[in-house]
Amino acid sequence: MSSTACVILAAGMGTRMNSDLPKVLHQIAGVPMLAHAMHAALSLDPARLVVVAGHGAEAVTKAAEDIMPLTQVVLQAEQNGTGHAVDQARDLLADFDGDVIVLYGDTPFIRPETLEAMQAARAKNDVVVLGFEAADPGRYGRLVMDGPSLERIVEFKDASVGERRITLCNSGVICASAATLFDLLSKVSNDNAAGEYYLTDIIGLARAAHLSAGVVTCDEAETMGINSRAELAVAEAAFQTRKRAEAMEDGVTLVAPDTVFFAQDTVIGRDSVIEPNVFFGPEVTVESGARIRAFSHLEGCHVSRGGLIGPFARLRPGAELSEDVHIGNFVEIKEARIDRGAKINHLTYIGDAEVGEDTNIGAGTITCNYDGVMKHRTRIGARAFIGSSTMLVAPVSIGDDAMTGSGSVITSDVEPGALAIGRARQVSKPGMARKLMEILKLKKARQAKEAD
Amino acid sequence: MSSTACVILAAGMGTRMNSDLPKVLHQIAGVPMLAHAMHAALSLDPARLVVVAGHGAEAVTKAAEDIMPLTQVVLQAEQNGTGHAVDQARDLLADFDGDVIVLYGDTPFIRPETLEAMQAARAKNDVVVLGFEAADPGRYGRLVMDGPSLERIVEFKDASVGERRITLCNSGVICASAATLFDLLSKVSNDNAAGEYYLTDIIGLARAAHLSAGVVTCDEAETMGINSRAELAVAEAAFQTRKRAEAMEDGVTLVAPDTVFFAQDTVIGRDSVIEPNVFFGPEVTVESGARIRAFSHLEGCHVSRGGLIGPFARLRPGAELSEDVHIGNFVEIKEARIDRGAKINHLTYIGDAEVGEDTNIGAGTITCNYDGVMKHRTRIGARAFIGSSTMLVAPVSIGDDAMTGSGSVITSDVEPGALAIGRARQVSKPGMARKLMEILKLKKARQAKEAD
Amino acid sequence: MSSTACVILAAGMGTRMNSDLPKVLHQIAGVPMLAHAMHAALSLDPARLVVVAGHGAEAVTKAAEDIMPLTQVVLQAEQNGTGHAVDQARDLLADFDGDVIVLYGDTPFIRPETLEAMQAARAKNDVVVLGFEAADPGRYGRLVMDGPSLERIVEFKDASVGERRITLCNSGVICASAATLFDLLSKVSNDNAAGEYYLTDIIGLARAAHLSAGVVTCDEAETMGINSRAELAVAEAAFQTRKRAEAMEDGVTLVAPDTVFFAQDTVIGRDSVIEPNVFFGPEVTVESGARIRAFSHLEGCHVSRGGLIGPFARLRPGAELSEDVHIGNFVEIKEARIDRGAKINHLTYIGDAEVGEDTNIGAGTITCNYDGVMKHRTRIGARAFIGSSTMLVAPVSIGDDAMTGSGSVITSDVEPGALAIGRARQVSKPGMARKLMEILKLKKARQAKEAD
Repeated sequence: MSSTACVILAAGMGTRMNSDLPKVLHQIAGVPMLAHAMHAALSLDPARLVVVAGHGAEAVTKAAEDIMPLTQVVLQAEQNGTGHAVDQARDLLADFDGDVIVLYGDTPFIRPETLEAMQAARAKNDVVVLGFEAADPGRYGRLVMDGPSLERIVEFKDASVGERRITLCNSGVICASAATLFDLLSKVSNDNAAGEYYLTDIIGLARAAHLSAGVVTCDEAETMGINSRAELAVAEAAFQTRKRAEAMEDGVTLVAPDTVFFAQDTVIGRDSVIEPNVFFGPEVTVESGARIRAFSHLEGCHVSRGGLIGPFARLRPGAELSEDVHIGNFVEIKEARIDRGAKINHLTYIGDAEVGEDTNIGAGTITCNYDGVMKHRTRIGARAFIGSSTMLVAPVSIGDDAMTGSGSVITSDVEPGALAIGRARQVSKPGMARKLMEILKLKKARQAKEAD
Repeated sequence: MSSTACVILAAGMGTRMNSDLPKVLHQIAGVPMLAHAMHAALSLDPARLVVVAGHGAEAVTKAAEDIMPLTQVVLQAEQNGTGHAVDQARDLLADFDGDVIVLYGDTPFIRPETLEAMQAARAKNDVVVLGFEAADPGRYGRLVMDGPSLERIVEFKDASVGERRITLCNSGVICASAATLFDLLSKVSNDNAAGEYYLTDIIGLARAAHLSAGVVTCDEAETMGINSRAELAVAEAAFQTRKRAEAMEDGVTLVAPDTVFFAQDTVIGRDSVIEPNVFFGPEVTVESGARIRAFSHLEGCHVSRGGLIGPFARLRPGAELSEDVHIGNFVEIKEARIDRGAKINHLTYIGDAEVGEDTNIGAGTITCNYDGVMKHRTRIGARAFIGSSTMLVAPVSIGDDAMTGSGSVITSDVEPGALAIGRARQVSKPGMARKLMEILKLKKARQAKEAD
Repeated sequence: MSSTACVILAAGMGTRMNSDLPKVLHQIAGVPMLAHAMHAALSLDPARLVVVAGHGAEAVTKAAEDIMPLTQVVLQAEQNGTGHAVDQARDLLADFDGDVIVLYGDTPFIRPETLEAMQAARAKNDVVVLGFEAADPGRYGRLVMDGPSLERIVEFKDASVGERRITLCNSGVICASAATLFDLLSKVSNDNAAGEYYLTDIIGLARAAHLSAGVVTCDEAETMGINSRAELAVAEAAFQTRKRAEAMEDGVTLVAPDTVFFAQDTVIGRDSVIEPNVFFGPEVTVESGARIRAFSHLEGCHVSRGGLIGPFARLRPGAELSEDVHIGNFVEIKEARIDRGAKINHLTYIGDAEVGEDTNIGAGTITCNYDGVMKHRTRIGARAFIGSSTMLVAPVSIGDDAMTGSGSVITSDVEPGALAIGRARQVSKPGMARKLMEILKLKKARQAKEAD
């Protein structure tokens, strides 16, 4: 554990999101942006992790605790500025004598290496600010340097013409010892147009108190803040672009990278091929040498070597596929272990089930796992042959080497090597189809006439 | 109703479209580009709406009347230039003494605000031309200004070196009183290389007659004309980009905006989430707080609050979903009312049907709505439980709280609370599967041998 | 047959691909990049085609012979540079007295016209090099010209400041008579930092021997070489961009071109419409006036005029669709001839089958074509009506005008005009559903209690 505490500001309303959901709970890569900020903090193995909640505090608290159970959440009842927000953590950190890094719940892309650089820079500076060279500095706050030292942070609207030419901008991320931080915060006033307490004011106060301030810089992309749905989409795209590049670097073929969507934790093995239009939800692992065909949707599942998935396949949480399993079109697999070499190629729902090695599941097969109240399991042995449109009414077991006849409803266990069949005998009525068609057409004509 | 008439030129062949379909009937956002131009015109609530048809006049006439029943269509038998085209409306507008705005069927993006600005500018000018500042003026006609007045329009090929430096270009859209317009048109000659009558010539004629001409400018994007399939695709993309931005502005999350396709009339409620790869055809409304999962396809349907649709769901016209309805993978819904809380999660076709509150439809269920001649309805009550692979042979009713057994073919009504079942008893033949497999393998070996 | 031999270098390991697969076997547009290079060569109708294999030689040999049976493959056991690689073809071409063009297995986009221009340029030059004007010459080798003659090729690292300003770069593609080529290659030394024999050295040697050298230039895009998965994706995108543009030029509407994926041999007829998110695998032909709806996946199939496919349709190899066939959602067709006007609209698998004119296949129908060992055929006549969820257990025939009842398992042939039905009678148990639900709920409650 490091001697650093992280305070993540997550109280903002995010008016421009135009949402009932607190801003930091909007998702990037399938998890709340707050989770991204918290994971950055957790990469430091911090002694304390404090989230400052405000708007939607209940939901934010629940989310923060879900992401990391030991998170401490403190309430900022009124939003009186970033300085005021950080100050809410004062009591919680009263007994803490390490460093504090202030992060933002709506700034999800700060890299662990950047935070480590800030920790390291504290050796030479009382306060460390994270800055970035802005391609277009626009209305960002500017970092006014005095040689290697940070002189002060000037807001755009207060900046002189000369200061506006500065391209080194303020990310808002700050590091100082807890003592220094809260001491300086005590001195911050809200004597400004907005009537707010600004965290950035502590730099000027630090310099006035003859404390040293320094800057660590990072890539501008890391400091991207999210204030609207459009920016949320841009952030998602930035995440996806990075993740796609990493996958290709790792030896995965993405036929059309822009059409493949990853979750933060997606793992794809070397020499796997991902065709266009594949969606990976959370907790997916694909081993080496698998092929995920177009229009496939995977969440919470595991595909082993030699797996062939899709097109139009859906693997849901709990789908565990062994080597060389084939899952074909319009097939859904959920909470099921599919053993080596099994094939489930068409129009099938396998849920709460086990399917043995080299078993073939015919088209239209359904595990009837739900009775309206409870879910039950289906167990299918090895080398079984399930005929098309077999209804497997769970709980039920099909033995090794067993078969079921097409169109059978299987309600009792089938022993190994047995053939189970449950269907009515085919009866043929000669000429009846032609007669029926005539009757139907007459009927239709009559109805049409009556409708006139 | 305003005192403006709109004349829309829609007679061109569109050679570069390389199509049998008249150019203006090619679609953007699911409707003919002519409809976009007509809607722009209709935003003015015009006294008259005239479409000038030529190539494919029959199809264009039908389309125009479908879009707006009171449209008057006039035929331009030969295509002798834009002036000649407008002149075809002379007789129709002989009794009309308001203003005329000339629009183009292949220029779909003119905004209502722009047309209103042209109407307003008529107060000071006898003729008003719509111009735009071109990023790359290329071969556009140039607007030669004399202070605030339009001196003349010069075609690129006739422009001097100095005139070619002008970046204010001609959109072709023009407004004048009917009297002025047709009076000037009478004087336009076809004494030019192409032997055509150019509408633009009326500016020079107006100035020669001491009439005033002015310019209203709009964004270049509004004046985009479509002459090829590639430009059609660019126009579609422009439409989609705008629609996506509007949706996000309105508080809709688009996880990957570039993969979501809207129709012109798509309405998505605030705090809905649209996952990647969703296609909205015409007439879709999604209420607030719904989630449309990846790979979903919606047309002519209504999704209420709390709806959860997809992945791989298809909602067709007439699908009316109440609150908290779940439609899952490989499910098709057509002409059906699905009541609050009903769940239809897997591999199902529900057409011409009603499904009651909290009813659960098992995987593989099919409403057999078509008898080869007519369509019939299926009515399912509340809290019913339809077993997997139930065939509901319409017309048929299933009462509240009723159940059907998996694999049943239901041809008669099921009363409330009843269990209906129609399936053969399962018979098991021990050892038969192993024996069958052996026989089949022997047979295959024999056939292979014979084939040698 | 031309008097040119092509030598394609395909021995490289492609370390940056991070793959077990030899680099030239990674695919673009569904075929190995080697196939693209070979097709470029084959466009010249060459007298000889030699592939130099090295890494993964066995797989490369097999692939090369699959692509073009008469290809000669020669092994470069050690990779000692491009000159050494070409020299491996010396013995094979000992009896050949025409020209040799050296191509690269990882440079898939050289156009036939470019190679023809090189052939033509040989009339005036002993050696012809393919060059290109580089937008960013970076570290490419530079072509140092002496008037119209090529003086020498200088590697970037050996280039002077002045030479580095040259933007005419070396593609590596070279043409000379076999005699000249191998004579010059004999003189190439490996006296350089890498200890390799460079093909480019033959230019200097040629000039020293008073032979003439000239340059043919091509578009930079043609010379794109592939060294990583990211570059593979860029190459795929370049291919797709070109193919999409060609389709639109040919009069095909692509609603969202970036979401449509073609194979190299895809043929789409004029006035067909391809909606967003359509994937074409190899060997697909779509005739004029068809519509392929969103989320469709086609491989090895033929769609005729008036075909309406998708959304969510999958056509697999051997799907032969006549005019006006409709294939709807969640339908898979494989090795099947579907006659004019037939409709297969929902949740169906048709494999190894024939479907007659105007036949309607109900939702949930499955051709049970596989018995666990062999595949069998299903034959359905014209104007037949297959009821929903009919299992057609092949081999089986359904006559013209015949019908099957919903939920029937058809194991015997059905004669024309007959109605075949095979299902149990529906039995209703009043009140039983309510009772069952109560029992299930009690059971669940008991289990929950026991689990406490």
